[in-house]
Amino acid sequence: MNILRTIYAEDLDDIAIGGAILGTGGGGDPYVGKLMAKEAIRKHGPVELIDVGELADDALVVPVCMMGAPTVMTEKLPQGDELLTAFRKLEQLLGRKIDAVLCGEAGGVNSTTPFVVAAAAGLPLVDGDGMGRAYPELQMVTFTLHGISATPMVLCDDKGNALVLETVSNAWTERLARAATVEMGGSALLAFYPMSGAQAKACVVRGTLSLCANLGLELRESRLSNGDPVGAIAGKLGASVLFHGRLTDIDRRTIGGFARGTARFDGVEDWKGQTFRLDFQNEFLMAERNGEIVCTTPDLITLLEAESGNPVTADSLRYGLRLVALAFPCNPQWKTDAGIALVGPRYFGYDTDYIPCDAH
Amino acid sequence: MNILRTIYAEDLDDIAIGGAILGTGGGGDPYVGKLMAKEAIRKHGPVELIDVGELADDALVVPVCMMGAPTVMTEKLPQGDELLTAFRKLEQLLGRKIDAVLCGEAGGVNSTTPFVVAAAAGLPLVDGDGMGRAYPELQMVTFTLHGISATPMVLCDDKGNALVLETVSNAWTERLARAATVEMGGSALLAFYPMSGAQAKACVVRGTLSLCANLGLELRESRLSNGDPVGAIAGKLGASVLFHGRLTDIDRRTIGGFARGTARFDGVEDWKGQTFRLDFQNEFLMAERNGEIVCTTPDLITLLEAESGNPVTADSLRYGLRLVALAFPCNPQWKTDAGIALVGPRYFGYDTDYIPCDAH
Repeated sequence: MNILRTIYAEDLDDIAIGGAILGTGGGGDPYVGKLMAKEAIRKHGPVELIDVGELADDALVVPVCMMGAPTVMTEKLPQGDELLTAFRKLEQLLGRKIDAVLCGEAGGVNSTTPFVVAAAAGLPLVDGDGMGRAYPELQMVTFTLHGISATPMVLCDDKGNALVLETVSNAWTERLARAATVEMGGSALLAFYPMSGAQAKACVVRGTLSLCANLGLELRESRLSNGDPVGAIAGKLGASVLFHGRLTDIDRRTIGGFARGTARFDGVEDWKGQTFRLDFQNEFLMAERNGEIVCTTPDLITLLEAESGNPVTADSLRYGLRLVALAFPCNPQWKTDAGIALVGPRYFGYDTDYIPCDAH
Repeated sequence: MNILRTIYAEDLDDIAIGGAILGTGGGGDPYVGKLMAKEAIRKHGPVELIDVGELADDALVVPVCMMGAPTVMTEKLPQGDELLTAFRKLEQLLGRKIDAVLCGEAGGVNSTTPFVVAAAAGLPLVDGDGMGRAYPELQMVTFTLHGISATPMVLCDDKGNALVLETVSNAWTERLARAATVEMGGSALLAFYPMSGAQAKACVVRGTLSLCANLGLELRESRLSNGDPVGAIAGKLGASVLFHGRLTDIDRRTIGGFARGTARFDGVEDWKGQTFRLDFQNEFLMAERNGEIVCTTPDLITLLEAESGNPVTADSLRYGLRLVALAFPCNPQWKTDAGIALVGPRYFGYDTDYIPCDAH
């Protein structure tokens, strides 16, 4: 098997930074997952990243992730073994050995959690994920677009409780897993969407974990050389600058388990005299410049601190921050009718069609 | 195997009446379970009731039940196959054939639901249950007192979703199953507390299903002979009359998924000039006469219409009803320290110790 690269504990810092950039303001803090992954790699050894094309068609591949409210995930740390427990229970349920680990969501905390299981189980990790970004609900993965069932799924908590779900649709998986996660105290660990190598090849968004690592590296190197961190990240992503401004107003509500809100910016430097508005539901989902929509989900909107290039989450937005908003195109799978129905602006309640960020 | 009696479709009417009496005002309407059980018996043949002593020590016995809000259970009827599906899934999970069906709760709707599975699976049904009455939470069974785990448990809904739970305690089973049931629309069907014949012999409250049938028969015969239905039921149960009065006030709230409330009565006939107060949380849990507590959970308090002897649920209490309140002792297992901790008045938030109804 061809190894793309070997990931050591110290590589996780870069990956977590990249995960925060692809997290588009949400996805949970990669810090927690990073600590868990570092610990697992120190204990069990490094993780081999492989291209999905290396998998045999009849290989068994299983994504793992952490589910819950970002704030809770940061405060209520897992015991450490739950992800592996969920993974092993699913393996037992399926009655055969799992051949590789997959990342469900390369944005946010789940950019790093799959390394925990890959290290502990001594399995390769596929360089890719099911989103190419972060989204808040379990069914919002390219796997769903390819008709892959989220179940059988195993969900474990920090107390030792385990649930196996078999549902009639991935939307029902989300509903039932969400209810269980809330009852378990707001966060849970899961193994789900068991799929064949052939299925993985058809649906995985490729290269997103090495992209995360490269984004982190780019940012680090650009700072060391006193370069332009924001420009370096934008270049790496092929992103356009939507705005550069200072945060003047932030409105945040928690509705239906989402951190919803709106942030408003006044332009600085070249953008002086212009305004910018960002709507979020955990993730940044819609951007308006001078009253005109310039980017919507499923395209990615990310905020970077203007000086340092550090990614900023919706949680940490506060008055006065000087930020640059970047937009870059989503994976083409999201641009299909089925993709737009699953994660387009109307699913999230915005009364607008998808407007590709590269249409401007 | 010694058969105690064979239950035909027409016997279910009596059992449902008896189930409503042991339901102590709650437990869900036995009508729905009765319809399901009649249908199953007509399709698959009658059910053989056996004493728990007939089971081999290494037999595998599994209780089944319906879970949810009584009001929802009456309006959102199961498809019909969910109980058997849950039962079969648990059988598959345990990797061996189940030898007999058990009733979890002989009061309310679950006095009749086990007949559905026993008929469809062609298995004997143990004459007994895990409560000798009705209680609202899954862990409130004598099985818990004997250290039997509620899990692995299978929970199915009418849409085709299924959950397997493995929990660290029976209280956690209740929490997670409750959250799933609410998400599934308010009712679900389950198979749980898999146990050996030896365990069943130690913990089952014996004879409660034939008691239900006999209570229904007693009421029917007493009416046919223009006898005293209330007196006949009281005689059969060894119950004392707590009060005979007219409902003057009813206060009902839904708090934390419970139908909580208080009913007040003014005495009639021999009880003229006296007052009576009944507190309920789904089930009737505490009775005060003239300001003095005269019965508390785990002893049973049941209300009968004074003329007809028909059992009355907390849901159907309304101004002006003339009712007789009966009290009768619970199964001795509930009178232990562990029993009182699990279902005594303090668990339900009443600031009083258990006062046995036969202490007066």
